[in-house]
Amino acid sequence: MITVLRIGHRPQRDKRITTHVCLVARAFGADTVIVDRKDLTLQETIARVSDRWGGTFSVSFQPWRKVLSTWEGLIVHLTMYGLPLEEKISAIRTHRDILVVVGAEKVPREVYDMADSNISVTNQPHSEVAALALFLDRYFQGTQLNREFCGNLRITPSKKEKLINDVVNQQRKAKII
Amino acid sequence: MITVLRIGHRPQRDKRITTHVCLVARAFGADTVIVDRKDLTLQETIARVSDRWGGTFSVSFQPWRKVLSTWEGLIVHLTMYGLPLEEKISAIRTHRDILVVVGAEKVPREVYDMADSNISVTNQPHSEVAALALFLDRYFQGTQLNREFCGNLRITPSKKEKLINDVVNQQRKAKII
Repeated sequence: MITVLRIGHRPQRDKRITTHVCLVARAFGADTVIVDRKDLTLQETIARVSDRWGGTFSVSFQPWRKVLSTWEGLIVHLTMYGLPLEEKISAIRTHRDILVVVGAEKVPREVYDMADSNISVTNQPHSEVAALALFLDRYFQGTQLNREFCGNLRITPSKKEKLINDVVNQQRKAKII
Repeated sequence: MITVLRIGHRPQRDKRITTHVCLVARAFGADTVIVDRKDLTLQETIARVSDRWGGTFSVSFQPWRKVLSTWEGLIVHLTMYGLPLEEKISAIRTHRDILVVVGAEKVPREVYDMADSNISVTNQPHSEVAALALFLDRYFQGTQLNREFCGNLRITPSKKEKLINDVVNQQRKAKII
């Protein structure tokens, strides 16, 4: 089971980035996201996606220090300052119960200490959204790109169209706005 | 040469997401980003990153329709409705001059038509930031994770510390806030 802990979330400023973190977590194989500050709009957005597109992914809220101090599995913190993903992923993959921590701009010192592994996805500044996607991609060895979610809404991959199959309404829509 | 075209940018609403798109483009091997709406703050932010961290990456502005209609290389549009990345990446990799289009929420129909390839990085809703990272990762066959940028600022990967080597100031700082 993979849990993502999003720390430093500020509902106004980080709304869209944290939404992307949650959607990437779901699409690339994590089971749940814990956000360190309550944001019901975010929770509803993600619940609506899971309802329609499938899976049991969900978002909950807890203070980060409590999550880190009580976690019994492995804690991996994604940071540009950490050790290279490619060197460490095989060892991490032997664990099954993992907390993956992704921060906003400033991450408190304690997080580096409390993590079992501080892992970098490149040592360049980029994005926690991309870092999480690459981490999960490597952890699952690329298999998540073809995962089936079996939701009510399913896409038929297409060269030029938007083909969505709506299982509940029993209709295929080719809709391009 | 890989150029990323970011369409549908709204400076207020998308400021942070477009910044992440640009930083991911740079860190994962693209050469430049064209944004369809002028945003000097964004341009300065990315220029500052390139100045300090290395490389020649830059951001410019042009209307998307003009870019698409005059582009002479391959046009790849990343969309959850497209054909699977894994199936198409080998053929795409034979091209060297590629425009990678990433949209915000609603992408005009024309973009699907003008693209040579509409490519999906999973058929689930997630993030253009993650889609771009995975596309570039697969295009460059994972090599960008270890790319050296040779900027003034360089990180020494570390288990617990933030080790930044500042080449200009000839000092290594271990600073954790």
